[in-house]
Amino acid sequence: MATDLRRKEELTDLTDRILETYDRIGKINHLGHSPLPNIGAVHEILQDIQEIIFPGYRRRQNLHGANVGYYIGDLIDGLHDKLTQQIARAIRHERKTLEQEGDCDVDYEALGQIKTLQFLDRIPELRATLAQDVQFAFDGDPAATGLDEIIFCYPGLEAITVQRIAHELQRLRVPFIPRMMTEWAHARTGIDIHPGAKIGPSFFIDHGTGVVIGETCDIAAFVKIYQGVTLGALSFPRDEQGNIIRGKKRHPTIEEGVVIYANATILGGDTVIGAGSVIGASVTLSKSIPANTVVTVDKPSLKFRDASLSQTS
Amino acid sequence: MATDLRRKEELTDLTDRILETYDRIGKINHLGHSPLPNIGAVHEILQDIQEIIFPGYRRRQNLHGANVGYYIGDLIDGLHDKLTQQIARAIRHERKTLEQEGDCDVDYEALGQIKTLQFLDRIPELRATLAQDVQFAFDGDPAATGLDEIIFCYPGLEAITVQRIAHELQRLRVPFIPRMMTEWAHARTGIDIHPGAKIGPSFFIDHGTGVVIGETCDIAAFVKIYQGVTLGALSFPRDEQGNIIRGKKRHPTIEEGVVIYANATILGGDTVIGAGSVIGASVTLSKSIPANTVVTVDKPSLKFRDASLSQTS
Amino acid sequence: MATDLRRKEELTDLTDRILETYDRIGKINHLGHSPLPNIGAVHEILQDIQEIIFPGYRRRQNLHGANVGYYIGDLIDGLHDKLTQQIARAIRHERKTLEQEGDCDVDYEALGQIKTLQFLDRIPELRATLAQDVQFAFDGDPAATGLDEIIFCYPGLEAITVQRIAHELQRLRVPFIPRMMTEWAHARTGIDIHPGAKIGPSFFIDHGTGVVIGETCDIAAFVKIYQGVTLGALSFPRDEQGNIIRGKKRHPTIEEGVVIYANATILGGDTVIGAGSVIGASVTLSKSIPANTVVTVDKPSLKFRDASLSQTS
Repeated sequence: MATDLRRKEELTDLTDRILETYDRIGKINHLGHSPLPNIGAVHEILQDIQEIIFPGYRRRQNLHGANVGYYIGDLIDGLHDKLTQQIARAIRHERKTLEQEGDCDVDYEALGQIKTLQFLDRIPELRATLAQDVQFAFDGDPAATGLDEIIFCYPGLEAITVQRIAHELQRLRVPFIPRMMTEWAHARTGIDIHPGAKIGPSFFIDHGTGVVIGETCDIAAFVKIYQGVTLGALSFPRDEQGNIIRGKKRHPTIEEGVVIYANATILGGDTVIGAGSVIGASVTLSKSIPANTVVTVDKPSLKFRDASLSQTS
Repeated sequence: MATDLRRKEELTDLTDRILETYDRIGKINHLGHSPLPNIGAVHEILQDIQEIIFPGYRRRQNLHGANVGYYIGDLIDGLHDKLTQQIARAIRHERKTLEQEGDCDVDYEALGQIKTLQFLDRIPELRATLAQDVQFAFDGDPAATGLDEIIFCYPGLEAITVQRIAHELQRLRVPFIPRMMTEWAHARTGIDIHPGAKIGPSFFIDHGTGVVIGETCDIAAFVKIYQGVTLGALSFPRDEQGNIIRGKKRHPTIEEGVVIYANATILGGDTVIGAGSVIGASVTLSKSIPANTVVTVDKPSLKFRDASLSQTS
Repeated sequence: MATDLRRKEELTDLTDRILETYDRIGKINHLGHSPLPNIGAVHEILQDIQEIIFPGYRRRQNLHGANVGYYIGDLIDGLHDKLTQQIARAIRHERKTLEQEGDCDVDYEALGQIKTLQFLDRIPELRATLAQDVQFAFDGDPAATGLDEIIFCYPGLEAITVQRIAHELQRLRVPFIPRMMTEWAHARTGIDIHPGAKIGPSFFIDHGTGVVIGETCDIAAFVKIYQGVTLGALSFPRDEQGNIIRGKKRHPTIEEGVVIYANATILGGDTVIGAGSVIGASVTLSKSIPANTVVTVDKPSLKFRDASLSQTS
């Protein structure tokens, strides 16, 4: 029982044929370019930031008043260097893609450091906002046994934490990295929030798998969303050549205190869900709703039969 | 191209400002406390238990009658020590949170060992139940090529395996760890089953992404559930101060032999789905259904138009 | 604070009781058999293939014309050996399961090598198809900033990449490994596409969590699918003994240019969605639709109430 070594000679020809496609089908390679941000490094950066925001939960235990300063100071120092380098790569990649090859003497690392320092400066405020999110989650979930459980276990908190981080970077016009961050959270939690979405404080997603919140959503404070909810686009405006126009508001506005139950779908950039409204499970909406409205699927649209007479399934 | 080392001096001030928020926004830290259960250790424990329940599939290959005793004996010995330590941490954390600081001479490790031995004692019965789950999955899925494929590949089996483990620990009043376990399965499979849910034997979730099964669900034997199904709460009872009351039955009861198709949503603690009933895809229900009923979304509620005349999308 | 070593003696008895269940409940062990494919090795193989298809994005950076030949040649050489071994294991496992123990002198490794070479030969064509998928994704998503972002970040592209790889192996009648591959993608992306599904070029899944595409689906070119969409089975044909019949067409046919919005459910092997049709969010369909039809949930089936008068949550 062995492989036939002579047949391995076929691999030389195969390699040549694959290399040939790198010329012919060039747009899905990344050859001869400066390095892209590194996925592993970006994930490490996210975990460092989460450790700074919620110290003592995940990585390092036994933190107390006497050692936390050393630990966090060292963490921030390393984070500064890692984030500077990845932002530099992202900016250089974007400039090259836009064929602004002219600015060959740009100091990308200096640019990266400026944005890194601006981002790090936002961490105290991020902590304040996330503390409100944690409290709001506890107040609204009868299954929660305490704040620790929410910080430790709740995917909804992880998703909004990563999105708030990514949103700050996006506001600083860091390319590429914000989306890498939210897709990392998407893979871990099943919750897909675009870094561009504007989300007020005291936001809670329960369970969360399948939630999609689009790029141009605008969500006020005290909003609660359940699994499977989509805040999406209705249709995409196209120019005269039929190309989609990027950058317009395509996703809904959700006012203060709205609750949206499981698997509801709300579509359209002009759609406004009025303050205090409740959207029931599985509702599909593409028009605005006034404040304090309850929208549910009309129950009589179900059909009942006797299964013992039926062949179905 | 380099970072400006002088600007790194700003990090000292930044670190101080972040540390200051640890005092001001204290409820999302875990400083000066005894260590929490470790997430990595809990995941390792889960994988050890799965290896004991389904030997020969994942980690160790080439097991046979002559070596399996040594391998499993050694695995159980290590599992005993790891689980004892993590349960001890979880109980100590809970006692401290409840400010029962008085019992400072409690031997948490001895408590952890008692619960660990009680849990390990349940493994033979867990194996018997999970063997029924595997067989029921095979009998109900035309795409399955054999039992091995279900054990090796099916996320639905992984989710129910972890929930049955977590449920035993929850019954032994182990705090915190059961939810860490089910959230680990949730992240891997997209299936979110609360450790408190009571689930009978021969249970099968197919595909499974987006399934949510709430804390106080009661599910009988031979129930089959598809992706996106929610068994959730309708509304939360609140006390006179407006605080939600925790611990009441808020989630449905599903009787024997029920099938619930994709994206159906069933809500409410008083809702009972009668034995042998079939709930169609995308149905939303918040009232009880008698036995042997088929419930489907009424088809005429769809609207048809000619897309070639339409501007939509 | 310590564990009681005398109580650890109970573990001997416990181990014996668990071992006893390996005899009594034998069908969920894998004892005394030849090794199964290794999950870690299969994931590594998938990542190698993705690196060959999209060079320069994830693992190795700074690839260019002068070094890419060495790098890819070496990668293909190692991939050949790993894939040969895993396919050999999968075939041997299948033969043993089917109790074709007679053919004990089969050279499984030689068989594995033949299928490996046949698979590797398909990589140039896979690259061409996936380049079309990437372009189609960009053309249809206003939130995409470039092709790089789609290759780097989009879970929908990862899911279809893995499925196209698995589908080729399934066509070569490699058992077991194709499903391991698509379940790996399912765990990472929440998108569950069976390796058997036939999917034309220029296919795009946006967001994707909760998407299920069944084994016998037939999907034409230029089809776009959103999160939560199920292309599933309506009911399973059973033989006279009540056993389900495996292998029939149970899942829908989707013609060219169809768009299916979030959480729509389309069921049944005879269901054909005509070319150019648009299926709206949350629609449930189990019958065929002519070409160029727009199907939406009828809006008036919603019920509106004033939330300020309501007690509901």
